[in-house]
This record gives sequence, C-alpha cells and structure tokens, in this order.
Amino acid sequence: MSNEKKVRAYTNIALIKYWGKRDEKLFLPMNSSLSLTLDSFYTETSVSFEDSTEGDVFYLNDALQDAKATQKVSRFLDLFRQEAGITSAAVVKSTNFVPTAAGLASSASGMAALAGAANLASGLNLDKTTLSTYARRGSGSATRSMFGGFVEWEKGTNNEDSRAIKIDEASWDIGMVTIIVNDKQKSISSREGMKNTVATSPFYPSWLESTSVDLANIKEAILAKDFEQVGMITESNGMKMHATMLGANPPLSYWEPDSVRAMQAVRNLRQSGIPCYFTMDAGPNVKVLCRLSDSQKIKDYLVQTFNPEQIVISGPGKDLEEISI
Amino acid sequence: MSNEKKVRAYTNIALIKYWGKRDEKLFLPMNSSLSLTLDSFYTETSVSFEDSTEGDVFYLNDALQDAKATQKVSRFLDLFRQEAGITSAAVVKSTNFVPTAAGLASSASGMAALAGAANLASGLNLDKTTLSTYARRGSGSATRSMFGGFVEWEKGTNNEDSRAIKIDEASWDIGMVTIIVNDKQKSISSREGMKNTVATSPFYPSWLESTSVDLANIKEAILAKDFEQVGMITESNGMKMHATMLGANPPLSYWEPDSVRAMQAVRNLRQSGIPCYFTMDAGPNVKVLCRLSDSQKIKDYLVQTFNPEQIVISGPGKDLEEISI
Repeated sequence: MSNEKKVRAYTNIALIKYWGKRDEKLFLPMNSSLSLTLDSFYTETSVSFEDSTEGDVFYLNDALQDAKATQKVSRFLDLFRQEAGITSAAVVKSTNFVPTAAGLASSASGMAALAGAANLASGLNLDKTTLSTYARRGSGSATRSMFGGFVEWEKGTNNEDSRAIKIDEASWDIGMVTIIVNDKQKSISSREGMKNTVATSPFYPSWLESTSVDLANIKEAILAKDFEQVGMITESNGMKMHATMLGANPPLSYWEPDSVRAMQAVRNLRQSGIPCYFTMDAGPNVKVLCRLSDSQKIKDYLVQTFNPEQIVISGPGKDLEEISI
Repeated sequence: MSNEKKVRAYTNIALIKYWGKRDEKLFLPMNSSLSLTLDSFYTETSVSFEDSTEGDVFYLNDALQDAKATQKVSRFLDLFRQEAGITSAAVVKSTNFVPTAAGLASSASGMAALAGAANLASGLNLDKTTLSTYARRGSGSATRSMFGGFVEWEKGTNNEDSRAIKIDEASWDIGMVTIIVNDKQKSISSREGMKNTVATSPFYPSWLESTSVDLANIKEAILAKDFEQVGMITESNGMKMHATMLGANPPLSYWEPDSVRAMQAVRNLRQSGIPCYFTMDAGPNVKVLCRLSDSQKIKDYLVQTFNPEQIVISGPGKDLEEISI
C-alpha cells in the first residue's frame, strides 16, 4: 500500500501511578491511574503493510532493529492484522523525539504512536478510546498517551473497557520539569519490578486501597483547578509507590544519589514559595509538576545542581495526532 | 553522698526496628524490636544525689547543660527518686564516647547509662531486666542498651513487662560498619516522625504484621548462627520501616544522596562476595551488618567513596557495666 501516514504520540507521566498487573497477557492493571501528557517527549511512527515474503521490518531512529525488538512490534501489529484480516508484512519507521541528547526513551509514546499508525495503515479507523485498549497491550502506560492533558486509565473489568479517558485538557498553567538523573538502561525492568512488588510487598494491598482514594481526590482537585492539591496528591502517591517497592523482598529501589538531591531541591523551591511537587517512576529521574509559568524559574534554580541539558521543560501534550509527511 | 560511681552503656542498632509508640507517656512500643549492641559508641555517666537547695545539675562532655536538657534528665531521675524516697538534687556527669570527631550522639547509650548510674546512686540496685523498663522511659531504644550482643525489646503488655532480654552474646564473628553520612541534627525528630507515620501511613498496619514475622525469623536465624539470613531480614526490615515513612502524609524521608551511595556500595560489596547488609534509622547514616572479620575489607572499599573518619568499625558491645573512676 502507498498511503503511508505518520502518527505522533506524546509521552505521559503518571501522577497516580500504575504499578502491578492483574493480567500479564492483556496488560490489565491492578488499579486505575492518571497522568499528564507532555509536549516535549514524543514519538512519530509510520506503518505500511506491503506484499512481501519477508517478515516485518522495524526502523527506530533510522536504524534497522534486531529480531527481538522487531518481534515485539510484530506481535503488537498482529492485533491489528487479525482484526483487519491483513496477512502482509509491515514496514515500521519510528523516531523518538527528545529535546536533548540525554535520551529518555519512552515505551508510552512509542507504543501509542505504533498503535496510531497501525490503526491508519490497517484501515480499521478505531476511535481513540478503543485504540487505547490496543495501545495498552503494547505497554500499559501507552494507554494514557492516546490523549493530551490529564488522562485516566480506567482499570476496567476486561480487555475492552480497560481504557483511557480524558479528564481535563490541562490548559490552565500546568507544566512539568524533568530532571534527567541517568538515562542508562535500568537494571530491573518495570515489568519485573512490579511483578516482585505485587508478589512480596506486604504494603501492596494498602497501596491499592490508598491509590483509589488518591485517584478520586486528584480528579476532584483537577476539576477544581486546585494546583497545590493536585501536587500534594501527586507527590504522596509517587512516594507510596516507591514505598511498596522498598517493602518488596528483596527491597527494590530505583533511586540514585542525584534522585535524592533533585527531590531536596524541589523541597527547597517549595519552601521558597514556588509551588512544585516531585514524582518518580521506575527509574532514577525526577519529574517536577509545576505551574508552566514557574518552569523557567525552576530550571534556573536546578542548574545550580544539574547540567542544563539534564533539565527539560514540558507543557501539556496533545492527543495522538496524524502528521503530514 | 560520696559513693560516686560511673556506669558505661553501649549504643545499639536495631535490626528489627522500633517505629511507633502505643503509649507516648510510658514509651510502650507498637512492636517488639531486636538490636545489636556496639562496642565503639558508648556513654559513661555518674549520678550523685547531694543535699542542695539548687536543682539538678547536668554536665555533658564537661559542659554544663541548659534548662531544657537538664529538665529531661531531672524528669527521668524522678522515677528513681520516687522509688527510693530520695528528695535531694542530683549532679549528673555524662560523657559520650565516639571514635571520631564526626559525632553521632546516641540517646540509647545516654539514657541507658543514666539509668544505670541512677540505679547505683539511689541504692535501688535493680537487676538489668527491671532497669531496662526504667531506661525505656528515657528513650525507647535505651531499653535495649541494657545488654550486650543481640537484644530483644519485648513490647510487653504494661510498664513492667515492656523490657529487654538478651537473645545471644553475638560472639560468633559479628560486626557493624557505620557510615556517618551526616552528623547534623535531623530536621524531624524520631518522635515526630514515628507519630506522623503511625497517624497517616496506610502501610503502618502491614508494617506491624510483617515485623512480627521478621522478628520470629531473625531470632531463629540468630540461634542457628545463620549470618546471611540475619542480614537479609535486617536489610528488608529496615527498608520496610523507611517505606512506612515514605507512605506518611506528607512523605517523610531521612535519606541523603550519600545514604543512597552507601547502600549502593554495600550492594556492590555483596556482589563481590562479601556478605554484608545495610540498615538505616531515622537519619541519613547507613549501618552495615557484617562479619567482624570482613569489617576492615569493607572499610577499605568504602574509603574509595567516603572519608576514613566517616567509617567506624564496631564489634558487639557488652552489658551495661560499672566503671571504676
């Protein structure tokens, strides 16, 4: 086929964390989560199904990928092929856009963009809500990258209703400053980390209970545009996720010395009167939820401790979108 | 009176942590805990009751202390005065012995030594088990400094049976390397930290349940002289305590960047084949449970990252003891 189209998906950072699956195969999560989509980190991907006796081909940042990476893409494309009755192989071209050389590859934007491009190429033309259930099966957090602004991933009850819904456009002076502490591959994958936590942490059941309260409260705070409340819930929920990991056996921590330094810097900024709140995912980087109008001031303070290229300012990202080539 | 006698008490580091009171006034703990007494950090104290119209006088490291510090000592001495029918004021002289200039004052050895000296001066001559219930009312962790080796502080049911019992002399190649990350006064006291954790952390009930299992297991491992098992339980229990703090609202963390660096160093040492395990209390310092015979090797590795005066090797400390002046 010749109708090659490119789709752009933005990454997202969870404010209410996803940490643990109840169904490993379908990527059904233990709890509903909520994120902010960011405009500074995104992936653009095209898919074309072509008559070929060869298998799928996958280019990432113009480099042909190996069998393992390609197989992951192939399996994901099979969801679309099955639904659309397509038997041909695909050529997938994907580019990660990150504002610095520091990296920070994102499976959220990557799998969401792939879902979007496969949706176009397959002719299925699923709406974004339905498409989010496909993205989910590529990477849990990709579910939420279907939309811009504040997005909830409802845990749902089955494959069809575990999906993304937009809560708010986040068009009210919201931003995020990412502190890239370390862009190396982490030694324990999120997948392994969450699995061990669910299996061994005595705190996991209380985490689920308290996260469901946090989610209800943050949605209320978002709708009330109460930034401080959104921030406090974000910081508390993120630390509780890391607490469940510390409670795992053996204890699991993704923190680096610079992660602690970054969190201390955020506390200092807050004490100086700038409302800002940190969160962390399954890695050492620290993300600072703030007023977009404060983000440059925050960066100016952080460069006293970190290199400028470690600090990335983002505004709210948009819905998954088609890009003309 | 003229029979001035000095008592020495050694500090202790909890392997199964005490974190939370069920009775603020009597220092009755939420859970039983277990510690290793250390020979490198101790306090020597003398008490003499003298006929005087003045109040109590308290010297710490040869410096006359202010009203606030003296009042804490006075209240504690009142327990002995009441029991012994003494009405006179006391002169208290206390010296903290720490192997470096870095400090690390300990309320555990301080209150235990004060209890021991008051016991002598008052003529009550309580046995150490009973005396541990007095020490407890000065500082919870002081309960365990009554004895050397591995000591359990049984949570008990009341003022009389919440006390120390020795589990094992720890005379089987056990040591601890303390990494002094920061000797400054912490911004949130243990007392406040534990109170907030009990009140707000959703993980607190599971912490108590899981600590009671850890305690049973570590006692079994100590009696079996299974060092690796003792170490793994120690590391896991300590991280779970810090997890309950991270779960508090607002989140509480005593970690400094160098705390993370120290824990990473311990993991590296372990991967290199030296069995050693970290624990942390309500502060940034990291304590490494190890074979005493490995302690110099461990110090040699740690001085690649820290200054030599930040690293202190301890063997197992002894019971509270009378020292001739």
